[in-house]
Amino acid sequence: MKIEKVPTDHVITTSPFPASRKVYVTGQLHPIKVAMREISLTDTKIYGRFGETEPNAPVTVYDTSGPYTDPDMEIDVRKGLQRLRESWIVERGDVEQLDTISSDYGRQRLNNTELDYLRFGHQSTPYRAKPGQNVSQLHYAKKGIITPEMEYIAIRENQRIDLLKEQLNGQYDVLGQQHEGHSFGANTPKGYITPEFVRQEVAAGRAVIPSNINHPESEPMIIGRNFLVKINANIGNSAVTSSIEEEVEKAVWACRWGADTIMDLSTGKNIHETREWIIRNTPVPIGTVPIYQALEKVNGKAEDLTWELFRDTLIEQAEQGVDYFTIHAGVLLRYIPLTAKRVTGIVSRGGSIMAKWCLAHHKENFLYTHFEEICEIMKAYDVAFSLGDGLRPGSIADANDAAQFAELETLGELTQIAWKHDVQTIIEGPGHVPMHMIKENMNKQLKHCAEAPFYTLGPLTTDIAPGYDHITSAIGAAMIGWFGTAMLCYVTPKEHLGLPNKKDVKDGVITYKIAAHAADLAKGHPGAQYRDNALSKARFEFRWEDQFNLSLDPDTAREFHDETLPADGAKVAHFCSMCGPNFCSMKITQDVRDYAKDNGLDSDEALQKGMAEKSKEFAEKGSEIYL
Amino acid sequence: MKIEKVPTDHVITTSPFPASRKVYVTGQLHPIKVAMREISLTDTKIYGRFGETEPNAPVTVYDTSGPYTDPDMEIDVRKGLQRLRESWIVERGDVEQLDTISSDYGRQRLNNTELDYLRFGHQSTPYRAKPGQNVSQLHYAKKGIITPEMEYIAIRENQRIDLLKEQLNGQYDVLGQQHEGHSFGANTPKGYITPEFVRQEVAAGRAVIPSNINHPESEPMIIGRNFLVKINANIGNSAVTSSIEEEVEKAVWACRWGADTIMDLSTGKNIHETREWIIRNTPVPIGTVPIYQALEKVNGKAEDLTWELFRDTLIEQAEQGVDYFTIHAGVLLRYIPLTAKRVTGIVSRGGSIMAKWCLAHHKENFLYTHFEEICEIMKAYDVAFSLGDGLRPGSIADANDAAQFAELETLGELTQIAWKHDVQTIIEGPGHVPMHMIKENMNKQLKHCAEAPFYTLGPLTTDIAPGYDHITSAIGAAMIGWFGTAMLCYVTPKEHLGLPNKKDVKDGVITYKIAAHAADLAKGHPGAQYRDNALSKARFEFRWEDQFNLSLDPDTAREFHDETLPADGAKVAHFCSMCGPNFCSMKITQDVRDYAKDNGLDSDEALQKGMAEKSKEFAEKGSEIYL
Repeated sequence: MKIEKVPTDHVITTSPFPASRKVYVTGQLHPIKVAMREISLTDTKIYGRFGETEPNAPVTVYDTSGPYTDPDMEIDVRKGLQRLRESWIVERGDVEQLDTISSDYGRQRLNNTELDYLRFGHQSTPYRAKPGQNVSQLHYAKKGIITPEMEYIAIRENQRIDLLKEQLNGQYDVLGQQHEGHSFGANTPKGYITPEFVRQEVAAGRAVIPSNINHPESEPMIIGRNFLVKINANIGNSAVTSSIEEEVEKAVWACRWGADTIMDLSTGKNIHETREWIIRNTPVPIGTVPIYQALEKVNGKAEDLTWELFRDTLIEQAEQGVDYFTIHAGVLLRYIPLTAKRVTGIVSRGGSIMAKWCLAHHKENFLYTHFEEICEIMKAYDVAFSLGDGLRPGSIADANDAAQFAELETLGELTQIAWKHDVQTIIEGPGHVPMHMIKENMNKQLKHCAEAPFYTLGPLTTDIAPGYDHITSAIGAAMIGWFGTAMLCYVTPKEHLGLPNKKDVKDGVITYKIAAHAADLAKGHPGAQYRDNALSKARFEFRWEDQFNLSLDPDTAREFHDETLPADGAKVAHFCSMCGPNFCSMKITQDVRDYAKDNGLDSDEALQKGMAEKSKEFAEKGSEIYL
Repeated sequence: MKIEKVPTDHVITTSPFPASRKVYVTGQLHPIKVAMREISLTDTKIYGRFGETEPNAPVTVYDTSGPYTDPDMEIDVRKGLQRLRESWIVERGDVEQLDTISSDYGRQRLNNTELDYLRFGHQSTPYRAKPGQNVSQLHYAKKGIITPEMEYIAIRENQRIDLLKEQLNGQYDVLGQQHEGHSFGANTPKGYITPEFVRQEVAAGRAVIPSNINHPESEPMIIGRNFLVKINANIGNSAVTSSIEEEVEKAVWACRWGADTIMDLSTGKNIHETREWIIRNTPVPIGTVPIYQALEKVNGKAEDLTWELFRDTLIEQAEQGVDYFTIHAGVLLRYIPLTAKRVTGIVSRGGSIMAKWCLAHHKENFLYTHFEEICEIMKAYDVAFSLGDGLRPGSIADANDAAQFAELETLGELTQIAWKHDVQTIIEGPGHVPMHMIKENMNKQLKHCAEAPFYTLGPLTTDIAPGYDHITSAIGAAMIGWFGTAMLCYVTPKEHLGLPNKKDVKDGVITYKIAAHAADLAKGHPGAQYRDNALSKARFEFRWEDQFNLSLDPDTAREFHDETLPADGAKVAHFCSMCGPNFCSMKITQDVRDYAKDNGLDSDEALQKGMAEKSKEFAEKGSEIYL
């Protein structure tokens, strides 16, 4: 067990991405500045015409890295990130700032001077809804209010597609082309996402904006199947390893590579203080599983858990700024026997804790019986529900069984109760599911949960590859994302084996960005294909640096290229290291195009005609041969 | 450029897999011994009853590693592998051994004493069909002959499933359980694969057995959608890098991790001698793209290629023992203009070479016009066609376009001609295709190519992740394998960036074993789920060593585990490194089961009953709460 280390700036990664700059798009309805990343490209050398070039428009991409990649921002991990949303929240006039924190446990920790050395220094007292007020984005949306968060999201999701269309002009037919997708009933606007559309989706419960009023550092983002598919990265310490410093850097690192939300699953020491450091320094929403900390408070004895203790934990975490809680309220007493004959029983930690409590007391799950009281807490801080799948399958054998689907129906009932309270809700799903049984999960979720966003772990499509479960699960994640899952919970190569280190976190995040983007392409999300087109055009034109810079991981792409051909010359060569000049198909294709041009066959029609005549002879000759 | 190094035994990996032994199943019809790998498992400790255990039956898995993992086999890379099939071939009485090799180029190389230092030493003169004979497995199958190759394959594909059923007895309901698959019209026998079934599939052209009579070292394997999904690994040197020694070790290394065939795509120096070393030491079929070597012979000038030179190259390689040739005979003159407006033009090397030749001479592709002469060569050695997809899409934008599908129809016509000559044939496909457009490729291939086996590269489901294209493509490969593709051509992390090293080859192979196995599970291939069940049972029972040993890559699984908890004690602990004891859901599930037992609720019924009563109260209470 390491000694606790509190974060210092030198361990936090802050460098910008290569050839990239932070751009800020201003709002129309609200005085907001929406952060994006712009990748500048080199010019295209016109083949065979020395010195002649044509420019390539820069590419704007969705950016989850926060202020860390903006060199103009001052980063001080001890002060935390700028409180972007605080004025928006206060100006709504429905919150009050408390004199002190409300939870007993939180106060104990605050008054324990032995913890001073590892406590985040710049704590301000929490906000809470004024009595009788509901501060959830769902509540505002239902009242017809377009919040700054909603406008921020509309601008963010569009990724400057309007500017793109201007820049492209004639080029648009090449770079702007996109395949008609197959969306399975998702209805993303073809042209442009408006703030009003965001409001409507939130009001309908089809999308959620995790945005605790006590996490103003978070840049607004949305989870719903009519928006870009999102990914979550899990971090957190455990009884056996890790320090606060490492966990904060893991969070910043995961956001850098594309994590849209972070779940802090800490189960070790000083969970409260660790969480404070993470929330204050993370630009994306934070999720937790409060039952983990509650269990720590009773020294791991599930049977000693009580509603009162759990309630205090919810308030403790809500006032720190956790944006969504995983609540395993669907693990009902009568469902537990359905798991007895499984190959891998109950593999969800939260699910197994609740199952043990239910059996020990022979009572119904207190998260279920106290569900409406939980709703009262959620709406006072705008914490969203992530209704936990405590009975998810832990092996291919247990996929889609009675226990799993019984719980899913109950989550559907609880969704209606949460919505009655205007509490935002997403539904957790999969685990281990073979490819041909994935679709059924999405169909049942849409049916039972009235289109509340689905949030799935993988699913892993086979059990036989420990050490590679980021891949076994990316296959299932890409498919279920295509079918309609709104957020994909990543799996790292260490799944089933150990705790992820920084490399594992990056591998998991990049792998899931691939799955999410593959899903966006298959759904036909407007503009999703542009980055693929731009990268492929760069590849075809041997603009190596552009190919690296447009990729999800420029560092690795460049490093792999340099392993084979380190020379800088290779990065401007009109062939590549795989084949050498004679075998370069891209070079030969260029020759083909030039040949066509030189022979006045540069229009499709002429080319078609010229070729057709010649090939007709051979077709005839051919047909003789083949008689 | 490295100096050529010829292989020595010390660079070849020969160690057996952990807890594994080679087993040989004897044939009924022929005196054959079919190699498989048996993984022995530890006993299950009966939870809560100290010292009591129950045994776990060993697991037999498909084994492509050849003699290298059998400690009883003597390996001498300079002598090559045992010539397993030579007696089978000779005893059929339809081949003659030549006095010398037939190709002019081959003889030049043989007589060039400057090459002696890098020449494989133990060359014997090649076999060829006697005049008028056809030695293809397809020819035998049509005549109703069940060859030793066919029986070997039947036994190999079954993986001792019969023995399994005996061993399991009562356990079978747990470990033997398998989900009903969805096979899209594939018709694998539910029970057991017979030699006669293999013959029928080959006779129908639905499956091929790549088995050049000059590659007797190869262990028989089959490619067809009613059998296990297979994977291919590409190796080979290039103008810029690599040595013979490295390429031989890459081939052995790829087979070790699961490559069912190897393609030697060498484009550099001494291609002829490199290939000889690889074939003599590889226990799986070898494929090549002969046009690559032909182009080297004309110093990279595509326009200087001639039919005569190409023909000599086919004979040269057929007499060395290449089992299948990629032939780009579908790149027709009239299809070339269809690629002019693509984002990435023609990305297949062979396709672009032929396109350039066609344009330079303004003539039809000579591989198309001489196709029947090629068939005559193929059937004299039993070389199988892999009809190349020279116009496959190199980017998401170019997926499923007119050029790609025009070529596919032509490949269908050529398949009929090949079959007329009893030449075995597979069809090459995909490249870059978004998820929602993958199925169309399979549908069109089945329609146009009369169920000839499909062999696809990936497809990659997005272009934006160079450095991770083993993953972008594993998503597409798993899906198209499920839909009916018989063999998946791997993609390594170096795709688009550089040449794969040993680590890349392993990453590519393991990733594609995952895709192929996920496809087998989704198709419901008989017995495919057993390994998943066995591994998951081991995981649930904290049999760490068994979990490692049953995985596709035991070394990496063990290494990742030890990073977090190195102590040997951790490998027998009843919890794992991710959560520690309090949070171990598997441990808690065991408690749940024990609780049920202790309270006489160990039968589902009793448990159901006991719980139902209690939960009924709460349901009622609940319904009040929620009114």
